[in-house]
Amino acid sequence: MAKAITNRSEDYSQWYLDIVKKANLADNSAVRGCMVIKPYGFAIWENMRDQLDRMFKETGHVNAYFPLFIPKSFLSREAEHVEGFAKECAVVTHHRLKNAEDGSGIVVDPEARLEEELIVRPTSETIIWHTYKDWINSYRDLPLLINQWANVVRWEMRTRLFLRTTEFLWQEGHTAHATKEEAIEEAEQMQRVYARFAEEYMAMPVIQGVKTPSERFAGAIETYTIEALMQDGKALQAGTSHFLGQNFAKAFDVKFLNEDNQEEFVWATSWGVSTRLMGGLIMTHSDDNGLVVPPRLAPVHVGIVPIPKPNAEINEAAEKIMRALRLKGLNVEYDTDMKKRPGFKFAESELRGIPVRLGLGKRDLEKGQIEVARRDELEKTFVPLDGVADYVEQLLEDIQQNLYSRALKFREDHTTRVDSFDDFKEAIEQDIPGLLSAHWDGTDETEQRIKDETKATIRCIPNNAEEEKGEDLLTGKPSKRRVLFAKAY
Amino acid sequence: MAKAITNRSEDYSQWYLDIVKKANLADNSAVRGCMVIKPYGFAIWENMRDQLDRMFKETGHVNAYFPLFIPKSFLSREAEHVEGFAKECAVVTHHRLKNAEDGSGIVVDPEARLEEELIVRPTSETIIWHTYKDWINSYRDLPLLINQWANVVRWEMRTRLFLRTTEFLWQEGHTAHATKEEAIEEAEQMQRVYARFAEEYMAMPVIQGVKTPSERFAGAIETYTIEALMQDGKALQAGTSHFLGQNFAKAFDVKFLNEDNQEEFVWATSWGVSTRLMGGLIMTHSDDNGLVVPPRLAPVHVGIVPIPKPNAEINEAAEKIMRALRLKGLNVEYDTDMKKRPGFKFAESELRGIPVRLGLGKRDLEKGQIEVARRDELEKTFVPLDGVADYVEQLLEDIQQNLYSRALKFREDHTTRVDSFDDFKEAIEQDIPGLLSAHWDGTDETEQRIKDETKATIRCIPNNAEEEKGEDLLTGKPSKRRVLFAKAY
Repeated sequence: MAKAITNRSEDYSQWYLDIVKKANLADNSAVRGCMVIKPYGFAIWENMRDQLDRMFKETGHVNAYFPLFIPKSFLSREAEHVEGFAKECAVVTHHRLKNAEDGSGIVVDPEARLEEELIVRPTSETIIWHTYKDWINSYRDLPLLINQWANVVRWEMRTRLFLRTTEFLWQEGHTAHATKEEAIEEAEQMQRVYARFAEEYMAMPVIQGVKTPSERFAGAIETYTIEALMQDGKALQAGTSHFLGQNFAKAFDVKFLNEDNQEEFVWATSWGVSTRLMGGLIMTHSDDNGLVVPPRLAPVHVGIVPIPKPNAEINEAAEKIMRALRLKGLNVEYDTDMKKRPGFKFAESELRGIPVRLGLGKRDLEKGQIEVARRDELEKTFVPLDGVADYVEQLLEDIQQNLYSRALKFREDHTTRVDSFDDFKEAIEQDIPGLLSAHWDGTDETEQRIKDETKATIRCIPNNAEEEKGEDLLTGKPSKRRVLFAKAY
Repeated sequence: MAKAITNRSEDYSQWYLDIVKKANLADNSAVRGCMVIKPYGFAIWENMRDQLDRMFKETGHVNAYFPLFIPKSFLSREAEHVEGFAKECAVVTHHRLKNAEDGSGIVVDPEARLEEELIVRPTSETIIWHTYKDWINSYRDLPLLINQWANVVRWEMRTRLFLRTTEFLWQEGHTAHATKEEAIEEAEQMQRVYARFAEEYMAMPVIQGVKTPSERFAGAIETYTIEALMQDGKALQAGTSHFLGQNFAKAFDVKFLNEDNQEEFVWATSWGVSTRLMGGLIMTHSDDNGLVVPPRLAPVHVGIVPIPKPNAEINEAAEKIMRALRLKGLNVEYDTDMKKRPGFKFAESELRGIPVRLGLGKRDLEKGQIEVARRDELEKTFVPLDGVADYVEQLLEDIQQNLYSRALKFREDHTTRVDSFDDFKEAIEQDIPGLLSAHWDGTDETEQRIKDETKATIRCIPNNAEEEKGEDLLTGKPSKRRVLFAKAY
């Protein structure tokens, strides 16, 4: 029997953990808050990474690699930045172990204390801008459009696999520009790239907007975000892109000679998405039978199950179908295990979220047909053996689109306009609170009060928010447009 | 002017550093011993990584990701292992910074001391075998064929870009097997994979052999190595694959039920190559004009230089050639900078090691010809414009082969059989000492004495070493086969 998954309706958190563990995506490790990403989970992440990497390169970016460690003094250079990260830093203080003199084991060698402590990077603006100082002299050196794929560490107190872990994998783009306008355009472009990736590949609809000042990245002038709605009605910040102004250029004294031969500080952006996206992927599509992976990110597109067991005839038919599917660039698995029954294999395939499953039975083959099951809707149908590869190719496209449409409909069904604080509180207390579109007076104080009373935060001011006169829910002060509130991960 | 490179004959170390820095491969960072891998260097590394990754997957391996941190107690579990790594560990002791009470800045918060210190992984056997304990119960769970791409940290006192850095990028394969034979076969297979990659892609001939006990990986029963000879006559260990026996299984209590339902300890291998390969690539092929990149790893295969400057006619011809080259899957750059002269662009192209350079001049175009320069031999020739893409494609193949042949000839020319310690000492003191094939009595003591007296170490006992009776150079004791000595990186 495939391992049972807790129902979403019973215990959503446990459902999520069950999927992560039982679909072999990730596991906790011996190190507090750090995860092990298992091969199947990593294969999905590789597909995400490779596609993002293509999109970054298409938009003119190149990859590089900067050190894991950041000297403590660097972090302190940008005041807001250190304020944002100091509380969650892994600090390296020594560079050697030795045998304890009392024979009790291995201890840190007190003589190998570092002169200056090193921080394991929580993000790399500081070490990168220190480096950029050497790379940038003139406007001819700009723009620098650099990305790195890396691990980062933020000492989180409450962790959850993929969604919030002490160490996580991510990419961080760090660009340098000669003008403010160009830097803003870059930050906005990367928001669009993230949104396109989320929607076209993850089949996860997102709202593009900007963060309120209190939710901005530590050191940013503007933070652009993509926000997705999960099945439990909580929002997930899925990616952010920051316009950093000249803050880091000033902190690290990075100037360039412009075309008029005058010195100016360089303009900056940074932008990142992380293995957190895996959490978003899971919580957008999966169901009580297990994981659902959109075809464009699936490590295995088609699973073939012989019914009831492999034999020469079925194997031959399977080989033929596999060849045809592989010619279309699809990854196929044929489950030839003699000890497991078809029902068990079906459940395994559903648990792993393989988009299409083919059942190959002797009687069906004689009839010239084959059973095709789609993972998204858990529907089965029989199709003619001839041309099954074309059918599957189209079906995968349909599944990709259906997952997106279904998620979009879910979000639309769970987006509510509210115009009074009572309505707000009622809406946010529902089982699936969803997104609340409401007026806000623009102040940190009001935002904080709403958060304290309801746990809802402003996810973003949507880019496409229409001008609309209104009054703040709580204070009644004037507001020009609605913002989106939600409980969030 | 392109920046000048120190001649190899003048100062080999400076030549190497000049190439690394002036070809924009890597740079030192603000963190002692850690490097910044610059975009062009990283693009070469990406090509190496992607090809290795394909070869690992073709041989049945999958990728996963394990934590950056290793609890101190884990390292101590395998006695030889901790002995090998304890002296060069970056140790995380705290997880928070705070504002100093005296206002002097940001300090480590003494209250955020970790209960158990964490080591930044110098290699991951311990954390991975701790994890494998949960993953392995029965022979059905075996083999586990897992690889990870990761950064590791070894606190080196003397560092050199790519060759020896405190942090480096690598891959580490960690496999688990039901039998000793299967594990040995895996370790040997990965040695062959590394050798094939080095020779077919890096065009770097290598000798496959096993390490002597004193040079084995800390915790290994057998270490298989590939050794390459650099242009200064020193050897470079370019990749290693280890048969670990049951050492880590015993240290982490990883047992499995075999087919007879009996408990056994699991057999292990690990294997890795790192950004050190970049150093090997540079030192195998490059010359006094700069970097030389083998075509199969080149980020840019063909550089096109308009002579003397771009104009409509030349641009049109360039576009046509670029289309034809790109259809063959080749990466092409067209240097349209109006401010630089052709001579400068030629030097830049040579410095960066672009395998083929095309010079497009008006008069040549009128004659229906084009200038083709190959980077390896620095030769120019004129070829008909028609069919130039086919010519270039074949030329790239020739360059790849020529680089390999040239490096192989160099190694053969610098491999010497020596039968007396006087001859040995004379040979090792030459400008280009090379590989010395000599008899050794098989003891650690003799190996150490030879090292102390000459700085030469035994690089390996070659896999293909013929049985040959002989006498140890130093002790006169009997020996069954020759081993390879060299000074080494």
